[in-house]
Amino acid sequence: MNANSIGKLFTLTTFGESHGKAIGGVIDGCPSKLHINMDAIEAELLRRATGQGNNASQRKESDKVQFLSGIHEGVTLGTPIAFMVCNEDARPQDYDALKDIYRPSHADYTYQAKYGIRDRRGGGRASARTTLPIVVAGAIAKQLLAQHGIEVHSSYSISGDLEEARKAGDTLGGCVYGSITNVPVGLGEPMFDKFQADLAKAMFCIPAVKGFEYGDGFAAAGMKGSESNDEFVCRQGRIHTLTNHSGGIQGGITNGEEVRFRVAFKPIPSLCMEQQTVNSKGEPVSICIEGRHDVCAVPRAAVIVEALAAMTTLEHLLRCQAYR
Amino acid sequence: MNANSIGKLFTLTTFGESHGKAIGGVIDGCPSKLHINMDAIEAELLRRATGQGNNASQRKESDKVQFLSGIHEGVTLGTPIAFMVCNEDARPQDYDALKDIYRPSHADYTYQAKYGIRDRRGGGRASARTTLPIVVAGAIAKQLLAQHGIEVHSSYSISGDLEEARKAGDTLGGCVYGSITNVPVGLGEPMFDKFQADLAKAMFCIPAVKGFEYGDGFAAAGMKGSESNDEFVCRQGRIHTLTNHSGGIQGGITNGEEVRFRVAFKPIPSLCMEQQTVNSKGEPVSICIEGRHDVCAVPRAAVIVEALAAMTTLEHLLRCQAYR
Amino acid sequence: MNANSIGKLFTLTTFGESHGKAIGGVIDGCPSKLHINMDAIEAELLRRATGQGNNASQRKESDKVQFLSGIHEGVTLGTPIAFMVCNEDARPQDYDALKDIYRPSHADYTYQAKYGIRDRRGGGRASARTTLPIVVAGAIAKQLLAQHGIEVHSSYSISGDLEEARKAGDTLGGCVYGSITNVPVGLGEPMFDKFQADLAKAMFCIPAVKGFEYGDGFAAAGMKGSESNDEFVCRQGRIHTLTNHSGGIQGGITNGEEVRFRVAFKPIPSLCMEQQTVNSKGEPVSICIEGRHDVCAVPRAAVIVEALAAMTTLEHLLRCQAYR
Amino acid sequence: MNANSIGKLFTLTTFGESHGKAIGGVIDGCPSKLHINMDAIEAELLRRATGQGNNASQRKESDKVQFLSGIHEGVTLGTPIAFMVCNEDARPQDYDALKDIYRPSHADYTYQAKYGIRDRRGGGRASARTTLPIVVAGAIAKQLLAQHGIEVHSSYSISGDLEEARKAGDTLGGCVYGSITNVPVGLGEPMFDKFQADLAKAMFCIPAVKGFEYGDGFAAAGMKGSESNDEFVCRQGRIHTLTNHSGGIQGGITNGEEVRFRVAFKPIPSLCMEQQTVNSKGEPVSICIEGRHDVCAVPRAAVIVEALAAMTTLEHLLRCQAYR
Repeated sequence: MNANSIGKLFTLTTFGESHGKAIGGVIDGCPSKLHINMDAIEAELLRRATGQGNNASQRKESDKVQFLSGIHEGVTLGTPIAFMVCNEDARPQDYDALKDIYRPSHADYTYQAKYGIRDRRGGGRASARTTLPIVVAGAIAKQLLAQHGIEVHSSYSISGDLEEARKAGDTLGGCVYGSITNVPVGLGEPMFDKFQADLAKAMFCIPAVKGFEYGDGFAAAGMKGSESNDEFVCRQGRIHTLTNHSGGIQGGITNGEEVRFRVAFKPIPSLCMEQQTVNSKGEPVSICIEGRHDVCAVPRAAVIVEALAAMTTLEHLLRCQAYR
Repeated sequence: MNANSIGKLFTLTTFGESHGKAIGGVIDGCPSKLHINMDAIEAELLRRATGQGNNASQRKESDKVQFLSGIHEGVTLGTPIAFMVCNEDARPQDYDALKDIYRPSHADYTYQAKYGIRDRRGGGRASARTTLPIVVAGAIAKQLLAQHGIEVHSSYSISGDLEEARKAGDTLGGCVYGSITNVPVGLGEPMFDKFQADLAKAMFCIPAVKGFEYGDGFAAAGMKGSESNDEFVCRQGRIHTLTNHSGGIQGGITNGEEVRFRVAFKPIPSLCMEQQTVNSKGEPVSICIEGRHDVCAVPRAAVIVEALAAMTTLEHLLRCQAYR
Repeated sequence: MNANSIGKLFTLTTFGESHGKAIGGVIDGCPSKLHINMDAIEAELLRRATGQGNNASQRKESDKVQFLSGIHEGVTLGTPIAFMVCNEDARPQDYDALKDIYRPSHADYTYQAKYGIRDRRGGGRASARTTLPIVVAGAIAKQLLAQHGIEVHSSYSISGDLEEARKAGDTLGGCVYGSITNVPVGLGEPMFDKFQADLAKAMFCIPAVKGFEYGDGFAAAGMKGSESNDEFVCRQGRIHTLTNHSGGIQGGITNGEEVRFRVAFKPIPSLCMEQQTVNSKGEPVSICIEGRHDVCAVPRAAVIVEALAAMTTLEHLLRCQAYR
Repeated sequence: MNANSIGKLFTLTTFGESHGKAIGGVIDGCPSKLHINMDAIEAELLRRATGQGNNASQRKESDKVQFLSGIHEGVTLGTPIAFMVCNEDARPQDYDALKDIYRPSHADYTYQAKYGIRDRRGGGRASARTTLPIVVAGAIAKQLLAQHGIEVHSSYSISGDLEEARKAGDTLGGCVYGSITNVPVGLGEPMFDKFQADLAKAMFCIPAVKGFEYGDGFAAAGMKGSESNDEFVCRQGRIHTLTNHSGGIQGGITNGEEVRFRVAFKPIPSLCMEQQTVNSKGEPVSICIEGRHDVCAVPRAAVIVEALAAMTTLEHLLRCQAYR
C-alpha cells in the first residue's frame, strides 16, 4: 500500500527509520526546468532542525541533504528527485534501556502490535525525524508556487513557559497557524478531494497533531448563520468576500481569499519524570526518559506544516492545469 | 482525477447533482457473500432524511434506493455495487430567482469560477444531498464491521435554540461526537495513511465541516505532557491505557481503545433574511433565501459522520488483512 | 480495490452483471463545457451491438443509454458523468441448464473459486456485455480528442469463414488493428506509465484478448537493429522518422508518428457442439451451449479497442497538461 | 503523477539516471518479519549485470546494493525498504559526441520534446540501467512468493548469431518465455485489474519490449473455438484443465494452471555502424555509436521479466488476502 506516499500529481514517497542508515524521499511529478534553490532547501531544513529562538533542538543534526537523481546541473529533469540525509549522530545505545518498554503515548506498542517487530532505536519509523523529507519536498513545492505568486506562511503559540517545563522534566503543546496567500480561485476537487480535506489529511500525518480547523473552525459551530456567512463584494472587477469566516474555501474549492487554518499539537510524550507503564511482557515498569528531547515540538513543527500546505496547494494547482 | 472516489480497498465513487436525474454511487471492494440487510440501509437513509427530533427535514425525499448491480438474491457478489436514488421531489423552479446570484458562503461562486459552468438548481453537485450515497456505503460498511464486533456511534450538540433561530430566519451550527468501539489494535498505516489522517480527510468531505479533532484534540495543545500522556496497564492479559487522551490512536495506528473524535459544523448558509451579495456580473444584489431549508445540519450530519467513520475503519481493516 | 476503474485523470468506473438490472459507468475527470454529441455515442453503441456486416449480434439490445448526472442541457459540468443501460432483453432462463456447470474457457470456474458465489446468468460480471460502458466513455473521449485533432481508428481480420463456422457450431478468432493519428509528441510517462504500457493494460481488459503488440511487435524480435531502427529526418521544420518500426512510441513517449498496434482475440468459447467439462461438484458432464452467441467477437470488439485507445490517449493528454 | 511507481499493495517506486549519482528504489508494502536473503538478491543482480553465457555485459558494474531503511538485522520491519546502487563506472564523456544528437530509435528526441531538457549522459532516465531496482524488488517478491510455493521462471531465444552480429556492429532481438507455477486459483481482479492486464502493463515497462502474449497468444487468433478451448477435468478432488491454451488465466483470474507468457524484444538500437539522423537543430548528421553495448538485451532482460512477473503475482496475492 503506498501509505508512505502523499499526493497524486506531485507525489512524495518517504523512507527511513530514526536511527537507521538514512532518511529520505522520492518526489515524482516535479515539473522539469525548475532551477532548484539549494540554499532555500537548506534554510528550511535548518528551521526544522533548530526550531526558532530558545527551543533549540538537542540532537546535533547536520542534516546535509544529498540529491541522488532528477536534478542535473541544478535544474530539474522532470524525472524522480530522490534525496537522503544520512543519520550521522545516531546514538542507538541511548535507547537500550527502553527497548522492551512501551513508552506512554508513544507508538512503541502499536508498532509492535501491528508489525510483530519494530526498530526500537529512537522511535524507528515513528520518530519525528521522519518528517525531514517532507521539509525538502515542501521547500521545492514552495519554489514552484512562488512562480505563481503563491506564498505559505505560519506562526505559532506555545501553551506555557518553556524554561519552567524543562526544569520540571515536563513538555508543552501548542498551535501552528497556517496561511496560504495569493491562491487562485478554483483549487480543490469535489467530492472527496476537497482542498480542506487534503489539507487536513496532510496535517494529521504530522506526529502529535490532534486537531485541525480552517476559517472560523470550531468557533463556527457556536455561531449563527448570520454571523458566519461571508458576503460577496466586487472590487476592481474581481469578486471577493467582505469577511473571511470561510477561510478561503467554499464547497471544497478555494475562493481566492487567504486560506487560513490552525493545527493543534499535543505535548511531546517523552518526559524526564517518572511514569508508570508496561514492558513487552505486560509487566508494570516505571520509567524516566532521559536523553535529548525538545520541550515543545511546535517551533520545529511549523516548517512541516508549511511544507505540507505548500505540497497540497501545488498538487491542486497541477490538477487544475490538467483540465484546462 | 478520481476525486469523487474515497477509499483504496473499499472504494466509494459517487455521482449526481441535487436536482438532476439521480444521485448514486458505486462501491468497489465489498467482499462477497455478505447478506445485505436492506432494512438497515433504509433506516440509515431515514435518519439522514429526517434528522432526529424536531429538526425534521423540509424536503420530502422518499429516498428509495435502487441497487443496480453487485447483489444477487440479497447477497454480495464481490463485484461493484451500484445504486441510485431518483430525484423525485426536485423543484428546480425554486431556484430560478437565484440562478445568477452567488449566495454568501455557498459554493455557487467557486463552482462557476472553477468549471465555467454549473448546475444552478439547488446547489448542484455541491448540495448536501450528494452525501446520500455516503450513507448507503456507510450502512454496508457497518454491516461488515459488525461481523468483527466493531461499532460506530455518534451523538451531537446544537449551539442555540432551534425554534428561535427558525423564527428569525437564521441557522445554527454544532458538533458531532464520533465513537468507534471494539477496534482491533493495528489499524492505520504510517506515514501518510495514518488512521486519524484518513478519518480527518473523510470528515472534511462533508459540507459545512470546519474542524476535526480526536482524543483530547485542541485541548491537548493546552496541556502538559504529564497531563496528556496515557499510561499503559495490563488487564486480563491485554495491554490497555489507563486514560484515553490519545483517542485510541498512537503513531497513526489504533491501540485498541475507543476511537473518539469531534467534528465541527458551521451553520447552514441559507438564511431566510436579507443578505448582501453579488450576481454573476459582479453587481451588488440583496437576497433572502426562501424555500425548504434546515435550521441546523447537525442532526442529519451525524449519520454521515458515522458512515464515513465506518468506511474508514473498514478500509483499514481490509488493508491489515492484506499483509497477514 | 478500485479494480473496476481505469485511468487516473480521466477515470471510468464500471458496474453491472449481464443479466442484472443495469450495466453502466461513472466517468470522473471529464473536463467541463464539452457539448456532448449524443448521436455519436449512440452510433458507437450501435457499432458495438451489431458489429459490422454479416456478423450481426443475436441478442436484441436496444442499449439505450441514460445519463444520470454530470451533463446539464447537453453540456458537461466537470462533475461525474454517470450513465446506465437497463438490461431489457435478459433471458436468464436460457442459462438455467448451465447454472452448475463450468463452461470450458469461460470464467465460471474462476469466479466461483475466487468469490465463493457468482451470478450464473449469462456470465454475470464476466460477460462481454460489461464492455458496453467502455464504449460510452470512449465515445466521449473521442469527442475531447477531436478538439485536438487526434483520431482513433481500427480495422480487423477474422481467421476463417464465418458462415462455415456457424454451421459447424464453432467459433473464430481474429485481430484488431488500431491506429491513433495526430498524436502530439510527448504523451506517456516513464517509468511505469509508458504510453504502450497503459495501452497494453487497457487492451488486456477486453475479454478474449490474448496478445498485444505495437509497431513491428513480435516481428521486431526477429529483426536486426539495422532493420528495425527508425532514422530521424527533418521535414518542414519538424522532426519525423523515415520509417515507423517504433509504432509512434520511443522510450514510452509518443514521437508524433502514427501509433499503431495489433490486438489478438481468441475464438469465443461458447460452442454449439458437444464439449466435456465438469460441474460444481467436479463431476464430468457433457454440454452443448445453445442460445444467442456470435461466431466471432472481433467485429464488435473493434469499437471497444478504439474506445480504450481513445481513453488512454486522453488520459496522457491531460497528464501532459498538468505539468505545463 | 506517481508514474515511477508500480503496484498498489506491493509498490515499487524507482529513481535514477544512468550516469547520475545513484539508481534505486523504495518498496512500500513489503510484509514485516521476512528474513531477507541478501545473497539471492545479489545473485539476481549478477544475472542482470552479466546476462548468461557469452553475451557478457561490457559495462563493469559492481552493482553493490545498499539498503537504507526498512530492514533491521536482516528482517523486514513493514516500513518502506529503500535501496540504491551508486553509479561507479560512469563514463559520461563517452557520450559527449552524442549530446546534441537524436540517436535513431532511442528516447533522446522524445525526452527532449517532452521535458524541454534531458540528462544526455548514457540515456539518462531512459537507460536500461534504470531496470536495476526492478530486479531488487523482484528478488524480494520471489522470496515472499516462495513462502506460498509460487515460483517464477523464464527462458529465452535470440534471433540470429551473436558473434556474427557483433562483428557487423549490428544487434539482435529475441523473446523471453515466462512461467509462473503453483499459482493459487483466484488471483486477478476484474474488470480493469485482470491478472493478464497487470502482467502486460508490467512487461511493457521494460525498454525494448514490443509485444506480449499469454497462453496461445497471437496463435489463438488463428484457431477455432473447438481448438482453443480448455476442457475441465477433476483430478484428485481438484479441478484442472486438460490443456492450457488459456495460459492459466480465465476471465482475468488465475485458474491454478501454469501462467505462461511470451515477451518480444526488439534489437538494441545502439549500432556500431553508420546511421543517418538529426541533431537537436534538426540538421542531418551521420553517427556511429561506439562504446560499451550489448549485442542483444534478451539474456539480461529475462531476469527483469521474472522480477516483474513476481511483483505482479505478489500484488494480486496480497489483494486476495485483503478480502478474506
